[in-house]
Amino acid sequence: MKVAILGLGNVGQNFIRILSDSGGHIRESCGSDIEVAFVADSSGIVKVDQGRTYANILLAKRAQNIRSLGEPVTIEQVLDSGIDALIDVSSASKDGNRELEIFRAAIDRGINIVTANKSPLALHWAEIVPYARNRGIKVLFEATVAGGVPLFNFAKYSCGPSRVVKFRGIVSLTANYVLKMMHSGTSFEEAVRKAQEMGVAETDYTDDTSGLDGARKTVILANALFDREFSLKDIRYSGIPEVDLTELTSKGDRLRLFTSITSENEALEISTGFGLLDQGDFLLSLEESALGYEIKTDNNGVLRVSSAHDGPRETAAAVVNDVMILAREVKEH
Amino acid sequence: MKVAILGLGNVGQNFIRILSDSGGHIRESCGSDIEVAFVADSSGIVKVDQGRTYANILLAKRAQNIRSLGEPVTIEQVLDSGIDALIDVSSASKDGNRELEIFRAAIDRGINIVTANKSPLALHWAEIVPYARNRGIKVLFEATVAGGVPLFNFAKYSCGPSRVVKFRGIVSLTANYVLKMMHSGTSFEEAVRKAQEMGVAETDYTDDTSGLDGARKTVILANALFDREFSLKDIRYSGIPEVDLTELTSKGDRLRLFTSITSENEALEISTGFGLLDQGDFLLSLEESALGYEIKTDNNGVLRVSSAHDGPRETAAAVVNDVMILAREVKEH
Repeated sequence: MKVAILGLGNVGQNFIRILSDSGGHIRESCGSDIEVAFVADSSGIVKVDQGRTYANILLAKRAQNIRSLGEPVTIEQVLDSGIDALIDVSSASKDGNRELEIFRAAIDRGINIVTANKSPLALHWAEIVPYARNRGIKVLFEATVAGGVPLFNFAKYSCGPSRVVKFRGIVSLTANYVLKMMHSGTSFEEAVRKAQEMGVAETDYTDDTSGLDGARKTVILANALFDREFSLKDIRYSGIPEVDLTELTSKGDRLRLFTSITSENEALEISTGFGLLDQGDFLLSLEESALGYEIKTDNNGVLRVSSAHDGPRETAAAVVNDVMILAREVKEH
Repeated sequence: MKVAILGLGNVGQNFIRILSDSGGHIRESCGSDIEVAFVADSSGIVKVDQGRTYANILLAKRAQNIRSLGEPVTIEQVLDSGIDALIDVSSASKDGNRELEIFRAAIDRGINIVTANKSPLALHWAEIVPYARNRGIKVLFEATVAGGVPLFNFAKYSCGPSRVVKFRGIVSLTANYVLKMMHSGTSFEEAVRKAQEMGVAETDYTDDTSGLDGARKTVILANALFDREFSLKDIRYSGIPEVDLTELTSKGDRLRLFTSITSENEALEISTGFGLLDQGDFLLSLEESALGYEIKTDNNGVLRVSSAHDGPRETAAAVVNDVMILAREVKEH
């Protein structure tokens, strides 16, 4: 299984680390090793020389010198090199156009895609997912929603006979983390700073706190679980700046940023943004750095899945899991 | 995907019902229809005539006359008929020998197995699972533990890169249901009767309340998640009759029958039976007809999965899911 990795931030580096730590476990489970043939960061793309180990890649990245791993190449050279999968763990672009172009070029060449980057799917779903499906190419995106908490593969491989009737989840960490601190009296700015120190919020946190990040995830949820082709423009959302802080504190500890999608007679009712949860609601029981959701299905009943803590290692594990699912299928062909 | 179904009790009938209700969903998702070629109940085994629908099978069973579906056959004829999978949703035998014999004969003929019946795996794991693996045959058993709550497929397809380090779960419904009623003052006998009325306890409830059912599940958990070859005789367990009722009520509502398995330096620490849970423990939050567990993994963090309610439909959905996983692999070959 030859792959190219676009992005060597927190998730990309943890991806490499998991491969490095796995011993023979990944090969035994999916029948294939994962060979990192290309890596890319903001400095460019590099073809990794034969014999370089996962540890070499991590060291080169830490030294801010991935060029030391091999020759610089173009994205076209990557796509024409015969890789089995393209892995996008890069930062989201605002319009998703850069990713769209690369994904389409990959699909045209028969290359499967694994992405943790939400933008292309939230903004260009119809041009990517059905386009790939019609050509027998897989686009997997477990890590785009709810971090490392299994969701799309859970629906497919654990609830196979079921259709999802309702989804409710806390799928964005940063906004809820900030909210919780604000509730206990911290100012918005101070709460964001603490979240950044904890590694929960990114340097540019506005996508998270404005609710945009949650809205992107909601598009992907609606499309993947309920077989739609929405785009971000179809979704209304709200974020922290619009919330009245007096209201926030008066409502006690039951305010969360969450997503709810209900299917009723073929119509979808979608909401993403702030809402008050009832006492005893499963979503209220989630810890402050946890994500989780509840799905109602027609055959598997109501199921709840959550993490105790979510971070880049867990998200990277979701990406590796997608690559393993691809590997099982590539091997069979 | 041609299958034979052994057992048409609650789970067997719900299996057929899910196929009947699925429309084209199952075929679209796994690439294959599921054709029920043989059915068996305590009256014998029948080859289902061509053209009989799922609804016909359910009606014949309701009329206690599966012979109306087609010719009676022997288990040997079933195994020699070219079926893709044998589905065991029959009642557990005490020693698992009947099932062992059938499973081995199936494996020898290249037939995959899906079982919701715990006995053969709890008592003869080493003679079944490694034997099948060495011959490239699949034995899937999602429904044997925690009813309809996804567990083994969750570990494989959602936590692919991870090894499980610790498992804690409430995987048996009846004993905990009875326990809860006893705590609120109901006698043991009365609690069992109510559980039977609710469809939670079987007519012969002693396997459940004695802790034997939980112990069987614990063997399967230890073997499947931690790669062991235990048998039931290796596991110590305790059940309700051994519990002092005074102690039970004095301990408040924190006593549960649960399973815990921890891997430490290659050794396993296993317990199944009664224990007091700490306030705030995730397992305590499970509702009275719910099952659930928590796994600690090396890469996917700590994950929690639970149902809101568990019954035969949910268990049957887990069996159908296993058949769909087989179908995807059979199709690829």
